[in-house]
Formats: sequence, structure tokens, C-alpha cells
Amino acid sequence: MRNVGLLIFLALFPGLVFAQKPNPPVTSDYGVAPPAAVASLPPVLIQQLTAIRDAGLTDDYAYRQVAHLTENIGPRPVGSRQAQTAVEYVAAELRKLGLEVRLEPVEGRRWIRGAETAELVEYPGHAPGTTQKIVLTALGGNHPTPPQGITAEVVVANSFADLDRLGKERIAGKIVLFNVAFDKQKAARGFAGEAYDEAVTYRSLGAQKAAALGAVASLIRSVGGADYRLPHTGSSRAAEIPAGAVTSEDADLIAHLSAQGTVGMHLVLASQTAEEVTTYNVVADLKGSEHPEQIVIVSGHLDSWDLGTGAIDDGAGVAVAMETAKLVQQLHLRPARTLRVIAWMDEENLGRGHADYARAHAAEIGNHVAGLESDLGAAHPMGFRAKITSQALARLRPVQEVLGAFGANLIALSDDSPEADLEPLAKQGVPVFGLLQDGRTYFNYHHTAADTLDKIVPRELQENATAMAVMGYALAAMPQPLPR
Amino acid sequence: MRNVGLLIFLALFPGLVFAQKPNPPVTSDYGVAPPAAVASLPPVLIQQLTAIRDAGLTDDYAYRQVAHLTENIGPRPVGSRQAQTAVEYVAAELRKLGLEVRLEPVEGRRWIRGAETAELVEYPGHAPGTTQKIVLTALGGNHPTPPQGITAEVVVANSFADLDRLGKERIAGKIVLFNVAFDKQKAARGFAGEAYDEAVTYRSLGAQKAAALGAVASLIRSVGGADYRLPHTGSSRAAEIPAGAVTSEDADLIAHLSAQGTVGMHLVLASQTAEEVTTYNVVADLKGSEHPEQIVIVSGHLDSWDLGTGAIDDGAGVAVAMETAKLVQQLHLRPARTLRVIAWMDEENLGRGHADYARAHAAEIGNHVAGLESDLGAAHPMGFRAKITSQALARLRPVQEVLGAFGANLIALSDDSPEADLEPLAKQGVPVFGLLQDGRTYFNYHHTAADTLDKIVPRELQENATAMAVMGYALAAMPQPLPR
Repeated sequence: MRNVGLLIFLALFPGLVFAQKPNPPVTSDYGVAPPAAVASLPPVLIQQLTAIRDAGLTDDYAYRQVAHLTENIGPRPVGSRQAQTAVEYVAAELRKLGLEVRLEPVEGRRWIRGAETAELVEYPGHAPGTTQKIVLTALGGNHPTPPQGITAEVVVANSFADLDRLGKERIAGKIVLFNVAFDKQKAARGFAGEAYDEAVTYRSLGAQKAAALGAVASLIRSVGGADYRLPHTGSSRAAEIPAGAVTSEDADLIAHLSAQGTVGMHLVLASQTAEEVTTYNVVADLKGSEHPEQIVIVSGHLDSWDLGTGAIDDGAGVAVAMETAKLVQQLHLRPARTLRVIAWMDEENLGRGHADYARAHAAEIGNHVAGLESDLGAAHPMGFRAKITSQALARLRPVQEVLGAFGANLIALSDDSPEADLEPLAKQGVPVFGLLQDGRTYFNYHHTAADTLDKIVPRELQENATAMAVMGYALAAMPQPLPR
Repeated sequence: MRNVGLLIFLALFPGLVFAQKPNPPVTSDYGVAPPAAVASLPPVLIQQLTAIRDAGLTDDYAYRQVAHLTENIGPRPVGSRQAQTAVEYVAAELRKLGLEVRLEPVEGRRWIRGAETAELVEYPGHAPGTTQKIVLTALGGNHPTPPQGITAEVVVANSFADLDRLGKERIAGKIVLFNVAFDKQKAARGFAGEAYDEAVTYRSLGAQKAAALGAVASLIRSVGGADYRLPHTGSSRAAEIPAGAVTSEDADLIAHLSAQGTVGMHLVLASQTAEEVTTYNVVADLKGSEHPEQIVIVSGHLDSWDLGTGAIDDGAGVAVAMETAKLVQQLHLRPARTLRVIAWMDEENLGRGHADYARAHAAEIGNHVAGLESDLGAAHPMGFRAKITSQALARLRPVQEVLGAFGANLIALSDDSPEADLEPLAKQGVPVFGLLQDGRTYFNYHHTAADTLDKIVPRELQENATAMAVMGYALAAMPQPLPR
């Protein structure tokens, strides 16, 4: 996922309501459950959902998919050969399942990581001729330094307000370091998304703001929770100066030395935006038996950052979406509406995958009954974050009951789209759901080289696949579409 | 620390005895306390130890020292400009404290890290022209690849026995990967040193054994406990083939792909051993008031690996040893015997610092009353691991009582020297003590780029400094030297 809020909490969003089985609705610190509503689904549908659940919790299909995507294919940045290989692989796998598969073009802009090195060349107390290495990575959209790099003083800003206070006089010609820490305590308490949102604004906007004051480069403290000298990449809005992220350790080092005197850095961030390329969303339909024109999307995004292999972000999401189709086919089920599996492209960079989909399918958005995505990793799913009405929520009580068997029965209502790829649908009033994983460790690995297959616990992936399959199938098979 | 066992446990070492206040001695799962012995120290000495303890637990001297060593100086590999800067810095600081300081020459062999990159160029299912990046680091003593690297099949061995079973036929011309995991569960249960010892033998001996079967390079799975795609360096015995360590994630990747088919790797490990250089142990005496010829050493090692900044390994050890002198001077104490602060050089590579010291001081080893070192990080000290007699242990009961106030009163007897730098002394029968830190997370950071100042908790460093100062001063001031 990119810039959207992940876990949004009531304290900040008064309109958000949590509802969780079992009944009766209760008032808690976390919010007020909606009024009890009579909700029921046909017994046969409940039986089908239960069958999907029981099959999903013991199946290894999704794990095998994400293993292939990460280990046999690897990182899948937009426009790369590996992204294209992944597109072809997912399309072929979904065809094997009997789905009608199309590759829908997405005009992506490739971004190519280049040399990224830095060292402090001046700082209080250091021996002449020695340097301190700085571990960093370029941010997506980086404007390159010259190949030989630049050398300038580093000025530390602790906030945008701090930057403004320092002003042009202090910033012009300097490298700015935004030293704003991801709040690890907040993440440990379960508010990882909020911690992310607070810090990530410096990644998104820092370079533009620093450039406006004449800075020659912009660095951020990596947005993440672990302390293993691991830089976190991510997108940065286009600016006329280079943009990178140093590790938390290196941010500390620079801040400490900078408090003692002048700190000079030699910086090479040679990554750059390259050619426009046509890449693809994989769109695969399992046609509905009664209302094939009505569509329920289950999805994840296939592109990844290049540092790791895109396991938790978001090979897992694609794999669990694929498993919805696999389970439905395996159990010889056929919902009334069309189940559409989508592996989105370009979630990480410009978001053109979902934008191009919305454009291409503008005429049929009215027939989109629901959109689901998984893009918060692969840890235990607590349930879903959903932009739906409370009437719609009441209709889902029986589904929550099925999901409660493995603790995935929370539905947290939100005013925002839970996932970036679902935003165009959400804007058109389509009910949208994001899988709500336990995100406490997600941002330790997010956008780093350590986003690798071993971070996925097979049992937890089964839970995610099952939650998506149960909810996706329910929405496709329930007698009436969910109210908008 | 290098290759020595860190936490040695009774299950493996029947000769080892734990003794911990309070009395009376008890039999426990962890061993049998020694027979109760009448032990007492002069009340004035107990008062002095208490004063040292209370001053040490609130002092920031050691933290300021390790901050300077790591942040203002940086990594300190043997023979580097930064190591020499550190030698001069520590010597100057100890002179400021009023100690008699000498730089004693150590003939070191410099090892210079070069390019270290690898990628898989052949593996099942990958797209033509794509590779999978492998994150790795060269091991100290590495025999370099040609600058352009080598390309060969990777063969995975899960043990030395496995290597022998594979034999020359399978190994010759190949890159061997010893995929032996550091046992994280064992470390989490408190047996980190045992977990380390089990895995590190592949780092020490792997390249020699692989070379003997005709391998063209030897890789190990990094010896460490974290999962942040962080390679762990360390020394490897000289071999005629390159030696490196891949991350645990990359070891998994190679093992998984290798189980599916042929895996080919392009490997560049250009690091190499360079010139012989004269470097120094810093040896600083606070002369004894009655028996200046009798010596108690308090020490840490000043050299570090180059990837991080050598905070927990072992800037912290040097800093806590320095603090012993600082506290004794601050409190205007003067023990009967000489307190000798040593900042050892070359612990990590060839161990020439302690070897050269033993040679240079051969005539006075008989006057060495005790040797102390801290080289297991900077976490809470549980006490000491000591190679001393049970008679000597009994004499230390009053000291343990002083240390018990902050939970540092354990003394674990061992048949081995607790630290590499104390081995020559231990072999001559000198009582030796290693600070015994809580090592559960030590090997997450050990020998990695993440060994940085932030890994040190100031309060825990105070506890370490205090434990060393109390024990060091007690040994230097007690009426009779500890029996050998």
C-alpha cells in the first residue's frame, strides 16, 4: 500500500464504527455497534461459506502462489521484466482455474534505482580523511544527483514548521534531513497506520517543500519501526531535487553530530525515472450464474518495490485474491454475480492501475457490487475495514459469524477507501473492503529489502485467503447486492 | 567478541558452577552453589564499593565515551585510520583521568572490504535476463574473487557431514552454501552463546572445508537472530577460496530454489587482506598504593568490524573499562594494587592484541592478580562469567552482595576463559572475569551494520560500568589477592 491510512481509529474518525460478533451490540471504548438488525442469509449460502472457510484454512494454494511470485520471479517494480513475468504467470494460473482472463493495459512510468551511497565527510571530532558511511535508499520518483554526487552541509529539520522556521537563508544550497520518527510505541499499541500516516507525509512532500526553499537534496528518516539499519523506500512526489531515506540509525547519527557542529555529506542518488511502458492489470472473471454483469472484485497489487521481493507488499494480496477463485472452483460453487480477480499494477508509484481500470470500466461501475483488496500484509486478519453503510453492515452479520471462527469478524467502518486501489470505486459509491490485518509489525518490513517470503506465516496467510474468499463469495452470492 | 563461547551452560559444562546471592547456597536446576565459606572484606572497602556503585549507576561517562567512539570516530577495523584515531582518543582520555598511559605495539594485518555483490542468474522458473539479488557480506580473511566475479552453481550443505556426503564430485567447481541456522529459539530462552557456538563453526571453518573438496567459493547463512535481511560478518580462517555470509532470507531463497532445480550465482567478493600495520593496545595504569607491581586488568576491545560502528561490539566494553578509572579517580580512591585499563586491539581478526600483550608482559604475568573484560554487548549485566577457583568465588561473596542491588550478582564459574582477550592470562592461571550480559538480543546485531549507538540503553551501560568498577576495584583493593 502507498499513502492511504491503514488503521484508522475512532479517536480520529468519529464517523467510524466497529461492529463485531457476537451479539448483542455493545458500547465499548472502540465505538458503538450499529443498531441490531434482522439479517439473515439463505441456509445454503451459509453452508457454502462454511465450506469455503473450512477448505481455505487448510489449503496451501495462496502460499504456493506468493512463494512463486517472490522466489521464482522476485521483485516486480512497474515496467520491469519481472513485473511482466508476474503478469503472465498470474494470468496463466487464473486461466488454469477456468477464469476468463484479460490483460488490461496500464501506462506505467518505469523508475530505475541507480547508485545510492552517502557518507559524512565533515563532522565534529572526526579524523581527517575518514568518513562515516550513511545507509540510505532513493525514494521512488527521485530526481537524480549527478553520477559523481553532490557535497553539501546537512541541515536537520524536525517538522515542516521547523523547515519554515529555518527558512531559505539556512536551507538554500543545503541537504535537508527531515528527522521525524515513526512512532514505534504507537504501532506496538495497534495504531500502526496512524503512526505511518504521521511520518509518511515527509516522504511524500518533503522533497517538494525542501526544494521550494532552495535545498539541493531532501532526505527523510525512514518510515518504519525496526532498528536494523534498514532503509525504507516509497514514493515521493516529483521534485527538482534528489530524495532519499536514511535509516533511523543514520538519522540519529546525523542529528547528534549536527547538534555538535557542521555536518557535511557526500551524496549519490542516481536513480531516475525512465521510459513510459505499457504494463497490465490482470483481470480474471468467474462469471456469475444469474447476474454476470454484476461484479465483485477480489484483489491485491502485483507490482512491488525493488528492494525486497514484495511478499507482504503485496504478493500476499494477489495470492489471497487468487485463492478466492481457487476455492470457489474447487468446491464447484457458482455465485449469482461475477467474481472478478484483479492483480493491480502500479499501486506503488503513480496508481495508474486502478485509475486506468476506472477509466476503462467507467460505463459499468454502476454494476460493481463490491470491491475487496488485501494490502496490509499477511499477518492474522482481524476482519475488514470497509467503506459501506451501516445498513450494509447489518446485512453482513451472518458472514461475520462465519468469519468469527478464526477471529476475522471485525468490520471497521470508515469514511475513506480502505485501499488505494479501491479509491475510484469508493468514490462512485461502490461498497469497498480492505482486509484488516494485525499491522503491528508490518511497518518493520514495509518497502525494505526484508519484505521477503519468510515474513509470511503460512497459517496466517490461510486466514487471509479464507477471509477474502468468504466475504467475496458472500457478496457475490447473497440474494440482494449490498446496498450502496 | 570472536569465536569463544559466550554463555556456557551447565548442561554442557559439568564443571561450571553458578553462585548467586543471597545465601544460603541452594541446589537448583542451574547447578550447585559452592560450600558456604566465611568471607568478609574490611568495612571500609565495602563502603568504597558501595560508593562506587552509587556513583556509577548515575554517571554518564561511559555513555559519552562510547558515543564518541561510535559517532565521532566510527568503525574501527584493525589498521584503519579510525582505529588509530580511537587509540589516540582513548589514550588522551585516560591521561586526562591521571593514568599512566602507554601505547603498546600490535602487529596487525589489515583487511579491506571491497565490492560484495551477488545475484542468482539461473534458477527454476525465472524469466530470461532477470536475476535475484542476494544480500551478503565478505567474511574477514576473505580470499578475493576476481574483480569481475565468478559464476558457478550453488550447492547447499546443511552440515559438515552433509558436505562430506556430497563429496568432491558434487562440490568441485561449485559455490557451497552452508545453510545452518542460528537457533533463535535457543537464544530467546537465554542460551544465545550456545546457539552462536553451534553455528559459528561454519563461519570459521567452512571455507577451508569447502576448499578441500574443490569448491570455488564458500558462503554461510549469517550467524545471527534477526530477520531484517542483514548479513553478519566475522572472521573466517584463511582459505584459498572466497568466503562470505548471506542473510538468512537469502539462504532460505537459495535453499528453496535449489530444491527445485539448478541454481547459478554470480558472485563478487573482492575484499582482501592487505598490508601488515603497527597498531596499538592502549594500556593505562592507575598505580597501586601498596603493591603497584600487582595488576588487575579492566578491559574491552577497541577494534570493531567495519559494517557498523562497533557500539555493542565492543565500544561499550572499552567505555565501561574506562569508567572504572573514572569512578576511582572521582571518588579519590587508591587501591593497594594497580588498576590497568586496557583497550585491546585486533580482537576481531587475528587476536594479536592479547597475544602481543602476553608476550611483552610474560615476565610479569605472575603479578597479574585478575583480568576483567566486557565483550558481550551492553545489555543488563547479570554478573560475571569467571574462570576462578571455588575458593576464590567464596571470597567474592561480599562483592556479590554489593552487586546484588542492581541484579548483577551472578558469578558463573567456567573452565574456559570467558573472553578471547583474557585467554593468555587464563592459561597462566590468572583469575579472569567476563561481564555476563543478558545476551538474548546480542546476536541480532552482532557483526552487522546495525551495531550502532542506539542499541545501547544508557541505564544498562551504567549497570555494566558499575559492575566492572565494583569488581575491578574490589580485586585491586581486597587485603589478599584472589587465590589462583
